[in-house]
Amino acid sequence: MAKKKFAKESATIMTEMVLPNDTNTLNNLMGGKLMHWMDVVAAIAAQKHSNRIVVTASADNISFKQPIALGNVVTLKAQVTRSFTSSMEVHIEVSAEDIPANKSIVTHRAFFTFVAVDQNGKPIEIPEVIPETEEEKELFDGALRRRQLRLVLGKRMKAEDAHELKSIFNMK
Amino acid sequence: MAKKKFAKESATIMTEMVLPNDTNTLNNLMGGKLMHWMDVVAAIAAQKHSNRIVVTASADNISFKQPIALGNVVTLKAQVTRSFTSSMEVHIEVSAEDIPANKSIVTHRAFFTFVAVDQNGKPIEIPEVIPETEEEKELFDGALRRRQLRLVLGKRMKAEDAHELKSIFNMK
Amino acid sequence: MAKKKFAKESATIMTEMVLPNDTNTLNNLMGGKLMHWMDVVAAIAAQKHSNRIVVTASADNISFKQPIALGNVVTLKAQVTRSFTSSMEVHIEVSAEDIPANKSIVTHRAFFTFVAVDQNGKPIEIPEVIPETEEEKELFDGALRRRQLRLVLGKRMKAEDAHELKSIFNMK
Amino acid sequence: MAKKKFAKESATIMTEMVLPNDTNTLNNLMGGKLMHWMDVVAAIAAQKHSNRIVVTASADNISFKQPIALGNVVTLKAQVTRSFTSSMEVHIEVSAEDIPANKSIVTHRAFFTFVAVDQNGKPIEIPEVIPETEEEKELFDGALRRRQLRLVLGKRMKAEDAHELKSIFNMK
Amino acid sequence: MAKKKFAKESATIMTEMVLPNDTNTLNNLMGGKLMHWMDVVAAIAAQKHSNRIVVTASADNISFKQPIALGNVVTLKAQVTRSFTSSMEVHIEVSAEDIPANKSIVTHRAFFTFVAVDQNGKPIEIPEVIPETEEEKELFDGALRRRQLRLVLGKRMKAEDAHELKSIFNMK
Amino acid sequence: MAKKKFAKESATIMTEMVLPNDTNTLNNLMGGKLMHWMDVVAAIAAQKHSNRIVVTASADNISFKQPIALGNVVTLKAQVTRSFTSSMEVHIEVSAEDIPANKSIVTHRAFFTFVAVDQNGKPIEIPEVIPETEEEKELFDGALRRRQLRLVLGKRMKAEDAHELKSIFNMK
Repeated sequence: MAKKKFAKESATIMTEMVLPNDTNTLNNLMGGKLMHWMDVVAAIAAQKHSNRIVVTASADNISFKQPIALGNVVTLKAQVTRSFTSSMEVHIEVSAEDIPANKSIVTHRAFFTFVAVDQNGKPIEIPEVIPETEEEKELFDGALRRRQLRLVLGKRMKAEDAHELKSIFNMK
Repeated sequence: MAKKKFAKESATIMTEMVLPNDTNTLNNLMGGKLMHWMDVVAAIAAQKHSNRIVVTASADNISFKQPIALGNVVTLKAQVTRSFTSSMEVHIEVSAEDIPANKSIVTHRAFFTFVAVDQNGKPIEIPEVIPETEEEKELFDGALRRRQLRLVLGKRMKAEDAHELKSIFNMK
Repeated sequence: MAKKKFAKESATIMTEMVLPNDTNTLNNLMGGKLMHWMDVVAAIAAQKHSNRIVVTASADNISFKQPIALGNVVTLKAQVTRSFTSSMEVHIEVSAEDIPANKSIVTHRAFFTFVAVDQNGKPIEIPEVIPETEEEKELFDGALRRRQLRLVLGKRMKAEDAHELKSIFNMK
Repeated sequence: MAKKKFAKESATIMTEMVLPNDTNTLNNLMGGKLMHWMDVVAAIAAQKHSNRIVVTASADNISFKQPIALGNVVTLKAQVTRSFTSSMEVHIEVSAEDIPANKSIVTHRAFFTFVAVDQNGKPIEIPEVIPETEEEKELFDGALRRRQLRLVLGKRMKAEDAHELKSIFNMK
Repeated sequence: MAKKKFAKESATIMTEMVLPNDTNTLNNLMGGKLMHWMDVVAAIAAQKHSNRIVVTASADNISFKQPIALGNVVTLKAQVTRSFTSSMEVHIEVSAEDIPANKSIVTHRAFFTFVAVDQNGKPIEIPEVIPETEEEKELFDGALRRRQLRLVLGKRMKAEDAHELKSIFNMK
Repeated sequence: MAKKKFAKESATIMTEMVLPNDTNTLNNLMGGKLMHWMDVVAAIAAQKHSNRIVVTASADNISFKQPIALGNVVTLKAQVTRSFTSSMEVHIEVSAEDIPANKSIVTHRAFFTFVAVDQNGKPIEIPEVIPETEEEKELFDGALRRRQLRLVLGKRMKAEDAHELKSIFNMK
């Protein structure tokens, strides 16, 4: 059986500069480019946890409230929160830095899930995650709820069976 | 006040070939690349509806069940489903075609939302959408429910006020 | 023997946004980038008609009268006009749209030819084209004349044998 | 009035390696990518002759007989052949080299025309070309004939007025 | 006068996956691509230290002993070692990871220098560096020696005045 | 045994235009991009000399004194200076041209070394270089000194054994 690994063993940091071709008419980073970077950094974190080839299984709802400007430095931090047999959830935190202005803010948080596969693309069992810090434990606990939401939205689970989801929707 | 426009006036089709740099170790299209294409085609549809600069506001949960292989032709069809003052929801349907094998399948469906802005980035009112076909009407009706889910997930609406959402979660 | 197919079965639409790296010093789309896009969309149309791997055989004279500006949305529509044993001619129509200004114009028309090949790169027979609309019929008829011009220019046919060409050059 | 310049003063050489993303399913360079490179090298030659911003005016019929393989080194040589007030014709010779096999062949010849413009995009007079070598003189002489063909094909000249063209089509 | 900053405040981590277009015929990462990544990560570290626009001033001798394979994950860590009025030296450590094989090795070490400039490109004074760890102190001390080597190689200092260099070349 | 070849047989010229994505905030070419181009042109020169697959072995100290602006045409000339069993040194001269201003200057000189390898990546003997012109002879002679500096810097040779180096450092 697969051994357990600490959440932090999958920690991955990616840094990108926003270049002209990455921006829209307002000179802000295009949402699609950011999602592309999120997928890459999260896939590497999932690889580190599983030591396997991984394929993207899903991206949770992402909200783009904060524009990121041309010339900004974007830092993406990804870490596996929890695993489920052959799939795992990865948390991504994006921050944007206007270095000459000395301003850095967290602009996005997102969750992607990946499935570990063998050379033929068949799902394969992966290690469990051991959360250590408070934040890692919270992300570990919330993973179950987010997973049920994914299953309900994907119509693979009935809402009334999604017990963990009730905390979001105040369902009795 | 902004005039109404037919849903089909925003219809946008994008065709891409899956190239080596777009693929992972299994020679399948990377999820992040597909999300990037989705964002571009959906942004163009949103521009066509609003005749404005648009910025990505959110991407709904996307599930990647179907791998798309190197060399496949990917067709992305986007169309605005409904508008809400200055924001609009865009439906994207992705199909992948293995042309020598004469096989084409719909691989993904996704919803992105965009906000129309003026040159200073301030939200600006846009036309309402007139759905015509059965599918357009269904997408128009469902847009309200999906919007409430986004607001609840983004913690900008309480679940008990999300009346439209109840049909998903069977809440009384 | 290969079956016949309708012209419209090969119809392919590609949409691109003009990004900074695609433009020259005047902020207009570079001709070479547009030819690259033309080749991709036309190759996909040729693949759809033949259900084969295709290789570019020739690009006809292209004239660039109309500049296309940074930020414009470029739509390329390609469709096979006629086939000749293992080769086929593809018609490409390019239009550019300045969406905030609500202006769209057809900027270019071009003809590319492709050869369908097997896995070893050997030419292979393809279906004949059935034109249906008036425009398809006109393109079908003109294909013979354009083919003779290509052969004469490529020095593979004598001008006096190019009977169809005479309508262009008023030759007796 | 603009001074005369030698043809060779515009000579430009570009070298490219064929990378995976430049190739089709048969691992050969895609035609559109080659046209893109042709346009870049020819534009630089036209800039060197005119010391002006230049825009692509047309690309003559290009025939792709010779596949170029992944890993090959592609050398593009461009030189202005002749100028006409504000436009100029550029000749491009492409050769492909399989270096480990020690084989180099000329694979393509093409003609592009460019217009020199000022900062507002208005055409501006450029130097005449002085051909020196036998090849340069031949290209200089043929430029008139190729220009008439472009005008006839672009329906801006009647075939019976294209006196130079007659040598191609044996017209009386 | 500019305040002092800790070396670690400039620490920057960049993660890249080796894609097909980044590799040579042996499927190993091309040296030039790696130098490109080194420059980007080091420039960001230099920006973080100086809170200024920075321009690359030099790259020290780089030796490529260790090939990095297609599909490997490359991690680049950069940190400013020492500053000299308006210029600063950045140390870059590159490691490559074959994740499915669970093997990670440090493949390269390099030093780049950058100059901080204002909006007109004029050099501008930057904070001094405070090294804390043993490694940071060693890098800080060695920076003087490496700087003299750069000046001697650039013929801006005579070898006999390069007192710090003597430890390398055993000069009396 | 491998035959001798003239230095000029490896001469390679590459021309690039500086595009928006290649530049920093001051609209000047990024150092890393230039090093990438240097590596490509030098690798092709090394291939031409050896008729082998080559891998980058080292890049010598590069100094970036001269900014190159957006829109400039960059010409890179590379030529093998000398070979050592299976490795060879390549000299690269970079010049930048502001064509509308009719100004061209040599901006950089650099030395890269490459190793010729067989299909398994094993080093393989290559031809000696025959220098002809004065400049080629000087580069040929200096190659020994630069090689010793590389070995000393790479700690693979003791400084006191680097007899050729003494001319640089005035060591007795």
